[in-house]
Amino acid sequence: MSAQKITLLGTGLMGALMARNLCQAGFGTTVWNRTLAKAEPLVTYGATLATNTAEAVAKSDIVISMLSDGPTGVLVQSDEDLRAALRSGTIWVEMGSIKPDEARAAAADLGQLGVRYVDAPVSGGTKGAEEASLAIMAGGSEEDFAEVTSALSAMGRPVHVGPIGSGQLAKLANQAIVGITIAAVAEAMLMLEKGGADPAAVRAALKGGFADSTILQVHGGRMTTGNFTPGGLSHLQLKDLNNALSEAKSFGLSLPTLSSTRDRFQRLVNELDGAMLDHSALYLELCAQNGLDSGVNPIK
Amino acid sequence: MSAQKITLLGTGLMGALMARNLCQAGFGTTVWNRTLAKAEPLVTYGATLATNTAEAVAKSDIVISMLSDGPTGVLVQSDEDLRAALRSGTIWVEMGSIKPDEARAAAADLGQLGVRYVDAPVSGGTKGAEEASLAIMAGGSEEDFAEVTSALSAMGRPVHVGPIGSGQLAKLANQAIVGITIAAVAEAMLMLEKGGADPAAVRAALKGGFADSTILQVHGGRMTTGNFTPGGLSHLQLKDLNNALSEAKSFGLSLPTLSSTRDRFQRLVNELDGAMLDHSALYLELCAQNGLDSGVNPIK
Repeated sequence: MSAQKITLLGTGLMGALMARNLCQAGFGTTVWNRTLAKAEPLVTYGATLATNTAEAVAKSDIVISMLSDGPTGVLVQSDEDLRAALRSGTIWVEMGSIKPDEARAAAADLGQLGVRYVDAPVSGGTKGAEEASLAIMAGGSEEDFAEVTSALSAMGRPVHVGPIGSGQLAKLANQAIVGITIAAVAEAMLMLEKGGADPAAVRAALKGGFADSTILQVHGGRMTTGNFTPGGLSHLQLKDLNNALSEAKSFGLSLPTLSSTRDRFQRLVNELDGAMLDHSALYLELCAQNGLDSGVNPIK
Repeated sequence: MSAQKITLLGTGLMGALMARNLCQAGFGTTVWNRTLAKAEPLVTYGATLATNTAEAVAKSDIVISMLSDGPTGVLVQSDEDLRAALRSGTIWVEMGSIKPDEARAAAADLGQLGVRYVDAPVSGGTKGAEEASLAIMAGGSEEDFAEVTSALSAMGRPVHVGPIGSGQLAKLANQAIVGITIAAVAEAMLMLEKGGADPAAVRAALKGGFADSTILQVHGGRMTTGNFTPGGLSHLQLKDLNNALSEAKSFGLSLPTLSSTRDRFQRLVNELDGAMLDHSALYLELCAQNGLDSGVNPIK
């Protein structure tokens, strides 16, 4: 049993699995969720339930926030009872995906209470959370990262990528690469289909080579079979690309491929009713742009 | 020892390694090269040297062409002595990278002599050739592919992707994905650097996730360390992207991401002296577009 006491706020789809892994790794774990019933099954694994956030954080060394988005986190953090209960020296670990600016603002705000801060968003979805194999991109000081490494390692593979906000920036870079790679694979799949080659055979042929990726194999397969059941939602992909572009703009960068890919996801979401489809549905936007019925197009 | 007699035309960097693998797999192998001295070391492995192409192909069941480019192949194929020597029923396997149209034209031309045709370009470079692990994308009839599968398997991993020309189309799709993924990784790396994150740490964090690829790990590393020694030459990447776009256009397709990526490689090659740099040097074009000295920029 580790000496560190951990609190996890937000036991949704991801958070519940992460809390279970913390318990199983031997951490004394307190959990809180707005809808308490969602946290209750964690008692089986040894977690302590808290009925409010102040009670949840009062004795913690590490507070992990896995709330749904930035504004919810701000609401929780501005709660006066919570602020009074947080102990100086506690490390707040923001594992939700928020903007780098929001992470830096939260760190400054909590710093006034003597609370330290690490932003550590994840990639890998519920499968990664289940298997404790999440990619965890952590921003913060070396010292603070060192103190939370053991807890983060119970949930996945933490890597320290830079100062506060860098974890969120790394997550945006991840999302930018994913979005643009989807655009690349869509064009390749459509070219192969129109040229009379078998896209599934080509994906098999390219396995292990320079063009290969999970996006080619998984999302490419979705495109040619017309399976756009999410998966990763197109409107969330759009939100991430907008956040990445606004972050890049804030330090004066123009990113042309990201920008044009964002425009196309925007068209998919706003004009082609694709918001709730898997992000591989960018293929349908490409078909529409070419005046084609893809044959697999669920969009009217 | 296989009963099939094989001829390999063109024992350059790739072809010599491929011929060696054929010999070692037990195929009776005849080799020809314009500069005969380059073919001579293959005698050690049991290859027979031919001093002209007619002699090389006269007794072959399978003729593998690994000549430098399409026009060279056309020159060799139009040689009257070669044409007279080719036996009806021989299968010509074009393993060089040429345009799909050139492959179809060559097939039609050789078909007049009763010679069958498979286009089977490769991906994987000299490392793949050395290890007999080349990705081999084959276009042709089922029957012809079946007859050459054993020989191709001695050099790598053959996959039948469609009718004649499809192998070359698959190679172009491969190159399109590679070029666009380089653009994606360049934007992510520059965003991370300007945002104060450590790109190498982020690449490590993203390993195994949706954004991961050889391009992220290898080419991303080249970008942040400024190592643009080829590798894959930028001017050849540009040629491939132009071929992919012209092929797409021939069946009425507009591919916006490929098109803008091509324009940027064109700028790298024509305006920024990047022709002989590794294709990861698209990063330098992005820096130039942002008015930045990358700090690793070999371009004046």
